[in-house]
Amino acid sequence: MRLPALRTPVNVDADALTEFRRDLHRHPEPAWCEFYTTARIVEELRARDLDELHVGPDALEDADDEPRMSLPEQATRDEWKERAVDAGADADLVDRLDGGNTGAVAVVEQGEGPTVGLRVDIDGLPILESDEEDHVPAAEGFRSENEGYMHACGHDAHATLGLGVVDAVLDSDFSGTLKVFFQPAEERIAGGGPMARSGHLDDVDSLYAVHIGLDHPTGEIVAGVGGFLAASGFKVEFTGASAHAGAHPEEGDNAIQAMAEAITSIYAVPRHADGPTRVNAGVVDGGTASNIIAEQARMEGEVRGQSTELMEYMWEETGRVIDAAADMHDVDAERTRNSRAPSAESDAALAAVVADVADGVAGVDSIMDHDDLGGSEDATYLMNRVQEQGGRACYVGLGTDHPGGHHTPTFDVDEESLRIGVETLAGAIEALSNEE
Amino acid sequence: MRLPALRTPVNVDADALTEFRRDLHRHPEPAWCEFYTTARIVEELRARDLDELHVGPDALEDADDEPRMSLPEQATRDEWKERAVDAGADADLVDRLDGGNTGAVAVVEQGEGPTVGLRVDIDGLPILESDEEDHVPAAEGFRSENEGYMHACGHDAHATLGLGVVDAVLDSDFSGTLKVFFQPAEERIAGGGPMARSGHLDDVDSLYAVHIGLDHPTGEIVAGVGGFLAASGFKVEFTGASAHAGAHPEEGDNAIQAMAEAITSIYAVPRHADGPTRVNAGVVDGGTASNIIAEQARMEGEVRGQSTELMEYMWEETGRVIDAAADMHDVDAERTRNSRAPSAESDAALAAVVADVADGVAGVDSIMDHDDLGGSEDATYLMNRVQEQGGRACYVGLGTDHPGGHHTPTFDVDEESLRIGVETLAGAIEALSNEE
Amino acid sequence: MRLPALRTPVNVDADALTEFRRDLHRHPEPAWCEFYTTARIVEELRARDLDELHVGPDALEDADDEPRMSLPEQATRDEWKERAVDAGADADLVDRLDGGNTGAVAVVEQGEGPTVGLRVDIDGLPILESDEEDHVPAAEGFRSENEGYMHACGHDAHATLGLGVVDAVLDSDFSGTLKVFFQPAEERIAGGGPMARSGHLDDVDSLYAVHIGLDHPTGEIVAGVGGFLAASGFKVEFTGASAHAGAHPEEGDNAIQAMAEAITSIYAVPRHADGPTRVNAGVVDGGTASNIIAEQARMEGEVRGQSTELMEYMWEETGRVIDAAADMHDVDAERTRNSRAPSAESDAALAAVVADVADGVAGVDSIMDHDDLGGSEDATYLMNRVQEQGGRACYVGLGTDHPGGHHTPTFDVDEESLRIGVETLAGAIEALSNEE
Amino acid sequence: MRLPALRTPVNVDADALTEFRRDLHRHPEPAWCEFYTTARIVEELRARDLDELHVGPDALEDADDEPRMSLPEQATRDEWKERAVDAGADADLVDRLDGGNTGAVAVVEQGEGPTVGLRVDIDGLPILESDEEDHVPAAEGFRSENEGYMHACGHDAHATLGLGVVDAVLDSDFSGTLKVFFQPAEERIAGGGPMARSGHLDDVDSLYAVHIGLDHPTGEIVAGVGGFLAASGFKVEFTGASAHAGAHPEEGDNAIQAMAEAITSIYAVPRHADGPTRVNAGVVDGGTASNIIAEQARMEGEVRGQSTELMEYMWEETGRVIDAAADMHDVDAERTRNSRAPSAESDAALAAVVADVADGVAGVDSIMDHDDLGGSEDATYLMNRVQEQGGRACYVGLGTDHPGGHHTPTFDVDEESLRIGVETLAGAIEALSNEE
Repeated sequence: MRLPALRTPVNVDADALTEFRRDLHRHPEPAWCEFYTTARIVEELRARDLDELHVGPDALEDADDEPRMSLPEQATRDEWKERAVDAGADADLVDRLDGGNTGAVAVVEQGEGPTVGLRVDIDGLPILESDEEDHVPAAEGFRSENEGYMHACGHDAHATLGLGVVDAVLDSDFSGTLKVFFQPAEERIAGGGPMARSGHLDDVDSLYAVHIGLDHPTGEIVAGVGGFLAASGFKVEFTGASAHAGAHPEEGDNAIQAMAEAITSIYAVPRHADGPTRVNAGVVDGGTASNIIAEQARMEGEVRGQSTELMEYMWEETGRVIDAAADMHDVDAERTRNSRAPSAESDAALAAVVADVADGVAGVDSIMDHDDLGGSEDATYLMNRVQEQGGRACYVGLGTDHPGGHHTPTFDVDEESLRIGVETLAGAIEALSNEE
Repeated sequence: MRLPALRTPVNVDADALTEFRRDLHRHPEPAWCEFYTTARIVEELRARDLDELHVGPDALEDADDEPRMSLPEQATRDEWKERAVDAGADADLVDRLDGGNTGAVAVVEQGEGPTVGLRVDIDGLPILESDEEDHVPAAEGFRSENEGYMHACGHDAHATLGLGVVDAVLDSDFSGTLKVFFQPAEERIAGGGPMARSGHLDDVDSLYAVHIGLDHPTGEIVAGVGGFLAASGFKVEFTGASAHAGAHPEEGDNAIQAMAEAITSIYAVPRHADGPTRVNAGVVDGGTASNIIAEQARMEGEVRGQSTELMEYMWEETGRVIDAAADMHDVDAERTRNSRAPSAESDAALAAVVADVADGVAGVDSIMDHDDLGGSEDATYLMNRVQEQGGRACYVGLGTDHPGGHHTPTFDVDEESLRIGVETLAGAIEALSNEE
Repeated sequence: MRLPALRTPVNVDADALTEFRRDLHRHPEPAWCEFYTTARIVEELRARDLDELHVGPDALEDADDEPRMSLPEQATRDEWKERAVDAGADADLVDRLDGGNTGAVAVVEQGEGPTVGLRVDIDGLPILESDEEDHVPAAEGFRSENEGYMHACGHDAHATLGLGVVDAVLDSDFSGTLKVFFQPAEERIAGGGPMARSGHLDDVDSLYAVHIGLDHPTGEIVAGVGGFLAASGFKVEFTGASAHAGAHPEEGDNAIQAMAEAITSIYAVPRHADGPTRVNAGVVDGGTASNIIAEQARMEGEVRGQSTELMEYMWEETGRVIDAAADMHDVDAERTRNSRAPSAESDAALAAVVADVADGVAGVDSIMDHDDLGGSEDATYLMNRVQEQGGRACYVGLGTDHPGGHHTPTFDVDEESLRIGVETLAGAIEALSNEE
Repeated sequence: MRLPALRTPVNVDADALTEFRRDLHRHPEPAWCEFYTTARIVEELRARDLDELHVGPDALEDADDEPRMSLPEQATRDEWKERAVDAGADADLVDRLDGGNTGAVAVVEQGEGPTVGLRVDIDGLPILESDEEDHVPAAEGFRSENEGYMHACGHDAHATLGLGVVDAVLDSDFSGTLKVFFQPAEERIAGGGPMARSGHLDDVDSLYAVHIGLDHPTGEIVAGVGGFLAASGFKVEFTGASAHAGAHPEEGDNAIQAMAEAITSIYAVPRHADGPTRVNAGVVDGGTASNIIAEQARMEGEVRGQSTELMEYMWEETGRVIDAAADMHDVDAERTRNSRAPSAESDAALAAVVADVADGVAGVDSIMDHDDLGGSEDATYLMNRVQEQGGRACYVGLGTDHPGGHHTPTFDVDEESLRIGVETLAGAIEALSNEE
């Protein structure tokens, strides 16, 4: 599957894009388990004989330097590895990807010029895909083969865009270096940090990231997305001492009571004058029997902020609250951060290039200069990395008609938007090599 | 297996007691699922050609009048029914016992005299029995065959005592009527009420109940146990509305926050001048994801009081607290009571009879007139019923060396205490027919 | 004291302004007790033979239609009335002003043209004024004669600006109608509503309001102030039942416990996606003795929001929380709103006029187009009223060097800024009559 | 005023008792300010030429060794000193009593025999005494002259009993040593400890304490009172940092929020299996304005327990809770103990002596062997001291018809009970010298 040559205006083999996207759609894999997905991407990239291809551990910060957040247990990873090999992935490659080392970075060197990056993410979600007849993947036979998992946020399309842009740029008049970042573990907001710290971002002058859908229809382009809330997810493990609630209430150190105290109080952390903040305790469980004072309780939650500073304010404050709630009941509380993403803003100049190019792409009938995401995602790590080094970054919204909302069983993309996305992104990248 | 004739002093076939107890020990069944256990008891009782034998629905209040508390789902009951039939229970009988109708009442009419009752309970626990070599049931081949369930509180011994006392009284000089109550669902504090309201207690002049172990060694008898805390267990289901915690925190009605508020506050219900009270939230769970405001949360808890009034005080107060906590977060809270036991005290006169008789039983080397249980159990329903009608009731403690504590995987009884128990209880019952 | 004729450019008798301001400064009066202040303003206005002068009840919504918020007790008002009369105020006039009827509206009709309003506020604060030598009012003999009360927010200057603008406009080329609103009870955010609903605002085409200081130095003008948080203040009275905490803890309905529950929970009302919100419990007291369960507890607090809707969201949510906290402890909670101000924004066109005019005023060396207040004030009621009727409104910041911060004992204004203020405001008003 | 000689049966000059009681009743003084009261007692005792009389600092543990709890400020003490001197107290003596050194110990040595103690307390309460006509002190002219203070718990009668017993024993056949302890500061539970540690208790073989009233009528004697709850009172000062609640909510460390958290949580300290416990937050205040995050908040509360251990359990647990609540909000909490009393039980043998003697006292028509107080008082310190040294102690209830309850404005005693009290106590003391 080789995408045809790109000339200005870009021509794209939409069928090839669709075929690749459907392959990935049939094989959704959760964060840090994108074994088949990475293997397929690598297979395609190797066929293109690129200048550089960094796979797995070479595409990320060394896992020994900082443990991966939200890495599943070995047993879980082994299951996914086996499934990937069964589906045709190379076993040796899959082994290399284990331990939080999925993903890849493709490099195209094509003459003098700027280094331009494109970031796409590749992981799926633990959602059971619809098997209703009006759900296209079910009707047309590319519904998820990993029951209980689904590409319900369009990352199958994102990976396809990454590959399509490589092809389009290869055959374009682009002069400079293109790096495409196939990032793992976005859904757990866990893969962005390690890829940002891989070193591969450090010479990037301009970085694009892209997301499909976001409630924008096919034919609409959001040239620059901003308003990302910085976010951190966490788990807290409360450990006290059990006792018989009837016979010796005074002997227990009540983990459930401590957790309840923490929950009621983290929501009461003061608002901040500098901007919006968020906090949530989203999942709880604890205890073993109604007549036993609970020894163990667990909570999963998150904090957010309009800026990274505001998010860290919430992190610090909720940390103190949790510790104090535990102390109050002589219970131990251990909090671990299992995800983290900073905030970010798109550079207007890069967005302007997108808007200009999109204006000439067939099928584009609406261009928004800017929109706010209002959520969190870890492309911001890569954007921040580039911007901190003096480069520019821009997050592009690619409209697509999607029947169900993101993260629901009936989510799907309009495959027509794949072509639009490749033409727009490749066009913008090419245009950057002509900037003064 | 017929136990030999009882003469004063009572002679008991200890081997037969042991054999029967081990049969039950191999087949522990949880509350309302005592299909095999009831079938075996009924089989033995039928072999004795008693004057009356009330089985299942005939032994309990009509389940249509008041729903059984803590009744498992039909699917669960079906599993246990199948298991019982596989183990040799009569399928028709098992069908009759379904729907919260396990247990039996045996009646021996033997001349003029008082009506004396004996209550024993028969259910097991969801505990995985030890398979260590020093655990006698494992070593001697009568470990639980229902993996994950265990007679870890000695109710196998209790049922055996009930049968042994029938035999002993049948062949004794006892003059009057004996009723033995084989009560189901004690571990969920759910079976005592329905049996107490069956009508069979209403003509009982004197009622004994018995418990083995309780940290008293073989050879020790506690003539009258008291200090039962009245107790009620409950579940609460909190139902709110979910929302994305980052994008629309104001749209959620947070079920976890409401539950946390309820938990911190139920422990703060005021102490009561009239005596000890207790409260516990022992099990919690709720929510689906760290970034979703929880729509659902569940909690299991209990309240206790030295008296039934004190327990109901706690029930009312915690109910108001839970409702208010739900209101506070615009959440719905539904509480259901899944167990209930009143408090009770042993009558000193009945205890004195036990103490007198025990003094002459071989192997008894220590007699305590009174001890407090400090826990809850639903024999109190039957005791209250008799006492309210002008009768007397007494809860007897039968010491046994038990290696592990009650409700632990290594609990076991010293089978020598079975004989001591039968001789003491049958002797006391016989003595009552000679009271002036 | 008649201010001299105003010609373009405006000439102002700065000495007269200073004299009047110092008179008011010596007689600070709290909200709804501005008897002397109103009497002095009225006395000056009467001397000018204006077209209309609405005093007290005629300047405000009928107090019978909606009770004044934060109205002091009659005894307190009587003290202030006596003090005002002693200081020279007309006794009959003072009587008319009683009952929440302080303030006045002055009307100048001067030919065809737009109706332009100016709102100034007139009340003082319960703060003990500094008597240090470096505090100018102390050094120069015009320190507060009402010990414990002080013009610590510059409303003495505001009233002076109102009078100065009347004079300047009277003698200017302004063609149209000028209304100057001398508003009472701003410090309690209680007077703005009644004046906004008086009817006098309903034909105003353009409204200016002004505040001195706000951390801007003499010579700086903020042409349009915005970012007012909507705010509501409240009191809650919790009434339970007392009991001896040792002898009968169960008999109490604990008002302090209910209040504490309410406090911990109001801070936990969810953040809102639409913008910033605020909540505070600022003052509490309750109970009588450590061994008595408290029958009474009181709390004063407030809620705010970036918009009026957001403020009302907080009002509703905290109301439900407070009621539920009271229910939780079987306590009665009665909340009364004692202040309310909506949010508002300044119209850019009116601000532009101010900026233009200020550019030509002697002593002005810095002009800011816009700044956010970040606090609350009830000029917003008047601004909203005008804007709702299709008019325009603008809040002007008048810089002044102030040694101490607002609401502190060493606050003072640089009287040079009085002249700058009159020239800027009167100039802008005149300019409006020349608008196309 | 010399009470006449006591012979068996005891004869008492009831008029003299009444006169002395009314003198004290007119001069009620709060804890540690019993300057006039102590001076009058000392004056009377000096007139009797006793063997030893320990006054003020000599009657108590050195105040330098352990600071007095609940000692009023110097300014307050100075007021009471002046008032005492104005009422006729000796100025030098009053000076000696200052600094928490009120009270006295009288010693009568009268031959060989046991050392017997009697403890009476002497302080009044901050209660405004009724001036209704049906209130005897008002009608008969001995209502409190210290407006706002009142002997509303009968300590005026107690001091009178102490003096009456000295006289009665002096002229009786008692052989041994009598010590009468006039203890200060009972109402704050603050004087018992220092007197218990004075050394004067260490050779006491038998100690009586006495309380009048307690809802028992004239003519009823409770020979042995028990069931004292151990108690500790405390104050907590929360100190945070203020901030403007609208402008900078994140900058405050909210003392009110921390206090509220502490309050909701101290009530939730687990019940204890060993017996009743109590906790209360009885008085709170904090904050300065509704729009300011509170820097300061204060709370007064108490803990109790059936035993001293249970009270200290509550002390420790609530302390941890308060510290954690403060930590949760980055606030400092300082708790000071301002009262402390252990629990105690009356020795049955001493009570039996009282019951025997009371049986022969004119006017006694009902004798209860035992009753529970259910409250706290610091006579328990002295009782414990004696019991710890191997002696015996007994708290005697002396019935009196009292129209209003203890600690209410209409409390009064039936003076007839003074004679009954002296005869009963002196009779019991004499009887002890005849014990075998």
